[in-house]
Amino acid sequence: MTSASPILIIGSMAFDDLELPTGSERDVIGGSATYAAFAAAVFAPVRVVAVVGDDFPETMLTTMRGRDIDVTGVERAAGKTFRWAGRYDTDLIHRTTLDTQLNVFASFNPKLPDSFRSTPFLLLGNNHPALQLDVLEQVNNPAFVVADTMNFWISGEPQTLASMLRRIDTLVVNDEEARQLSGIYNIRRAARDILKRGPKRVIIKRGEHGALLFDEEGIFAAPGFPLEDVVDPTGAGDSFAGGLLGYLATQQQVTALSLRRAMLHATATASFCVEAVGTRRISTLTREDVTHRVTEIRTLYEFGASTM
Amino acid sequence: MTSASPILIIGSMAFDDLELPTGSERDVIGGSATYAAFAAAVFAPVRVVAVVGDDFPETMLTTMRGRDIDVTGVERAAGKTFRWAGRYDTDLIHRTTLDTQLNVFASFNPKLPDSFRSTPFLLLGNNHPALQLDVLEQVNNPAFVVADTMNFWISGEPQTLASMLRRIDTLVVNDEEARQLSGIYNIRRAARDILKRGPKRVIIKRGEHGALLFDEEGIFAAPGFPLEDVVDPTGAGDSFAGGLLGYLATQQQVTALSLRRAMLHATATASFCVEAVGTRRISTLTREDVTHRVTEIRTLYEFGASTM
Repeated sequence: MTSASPILIIGSMAFDDLELPTGSERDVIGGSATYAAFAAAVFAPVRVVAVVGDDFPETMLTTMRGRDIDVTGVERAAGKTFRWAGRYDTDLIHRTTLDTQLNVFASFNPKLPDSFRSTPFLLLGNNHPALQLDVLEQVNNPAFVVADTMNFWISGEPQTLASMLRRIDTLVVNDEEARQLSGIYNIRRAARDILKRGPKRVIIKRGEHGALLFDEEGIFAAPGFPLEDVVDPTGAGDSFAGGLLGYLATQQQVTALSLRRAMLHATATASFCVEAVGTRRISTLTREDVTHRVTEIRTLYEFGASTM
Repeated sequence: MTSASPILIIGSMAFDDLELPTGSERDVIGGSATYAAFAAAVFAPVRVVAVVGDDFPETMLTTMRGRDIDVTGVERAAGKTFRWAGRYDTDLIHRTTLDTQLNVFASFNPKLPDSFRSTPFLLLGNNHPALQLDVLEQVNNPAFVVADTMNFWISGEPQTLASMLRRIDTLVVNDEEARQLSGIYNIRRAARDILKRGPKRVIIKRGEHGALLFDEEGIFAAPGFPLEDVVDPTGAGDSFAGGLLGYLATQQQVTALSLRRAMLHATATASFCVEAVGTRRISTLTREDVTHRVTEIRTLYEFGASTM
């Protein structure tokens, strides 16, 4: 991956307690930065900015280093690591948050190592928009900035969120978040509204139904890959964002074409994430695995053995 | 359309009372045969087998004749026309049946006009599977048979439904019906199970998220077309089936390739249906309208202005 540009990822590192249809899993290492970092590292060198508590296992950081992920921006603070607990419905789509403990995340004040300040690709993982802006300020002229957000910030921090949206290239949200942010139910109208708020592009994730990219060229639909074994959807959205930025970091330029290819690579990357609990699969994923699945995804659009 | 083969459609003709987010509509002419006939007639000559009561307006039959739909198989019985009432949620996806009155449909005993008996393309619209089999028996060696069904028959008539499935080429159902029929939640596994029950292909409709075709070539995903104005989803599934068979009737052969193209034409046809209440839009649709929308749908899969 020597030809790929580095990617800076800011987000959470966490312990997750998961109630899955297949059983309960406690103390699963997760968090938006963790999933996105493993996903992006399939393609490019990754730099992570996050905070963990003194209970976070050093072995996980070692695993990340082994995947060409620079964790010098991961601060170890006194106290407990961020913790999330959730229960998934049998459909593995709907989930209920049972508990959220910010812990060391509550007082996190990210300070970028000097070596991180000129990173060209930036992923502002789901977080307080003030924190996202703070990190953005510390990077010198990033070439491409992608951000995620969630219902909590959309309703609680609308003005800071609005400032953040004016500073990014691409917003990645799910359909419910797009509706909440725009106040518009229809997805196409919601996307158009969001584009007026700043980002040049918006990507709307729709879980198993794939994702839609809205940009100056129009709309691109990445199909969901119909998996036979979905085990744990936690981190799928973060893996999508990581895979998207990872693929783009291997390209000369971000263009309508490279973004569309990135959509398929992001879909492929996320499809592996959900096949195992936590980061088990995403942390061992290879570029060849992803390339193979992109080929499978493309057959979903092809017109039979003799393609058009 | 002189080069297209004729299509025989059996299904319901009905009055629908619709509670839509935009308001209530009473006595809307609907029914699976009505929607599917208008959709198929965009492509090919259509023959309808159905029953209406003495309250059904002759003007509607005149409109259908004007669209090259042969209604000599529409029996006018003493009594009231089949009636359905339903309420749609604001998402225009979920709906609740408020009332169903079979009326003249309860004693319907379809008898095909002799001129209908050698129709090559056959659409067995959602109906009692015994009725579907009865019609199938009356057609001489149809070249291609598509059937639809619903939860009511899946739970209530499993054995007759099983006999029907062994006699058809393609089953068209939505995802919930596929899950109920197979007893399997995962869509890919559900499709494989259904294919073991008889049909050579199964098409799983997913509303705004498009449709999946499972056949001997693999899986093909037709994307949902992101509409800005969805008014009334009633009849979308029937229009999909009508558009599918209509397009196939214009082709020399049913192949993996022509089926994939038919999936896009079916999606396009159904996308017009939902833009107006009842059959208002589908009954005036032209082949040019559909061709134009198929082009728009294909751009959803294309890699920017310079396509790959």
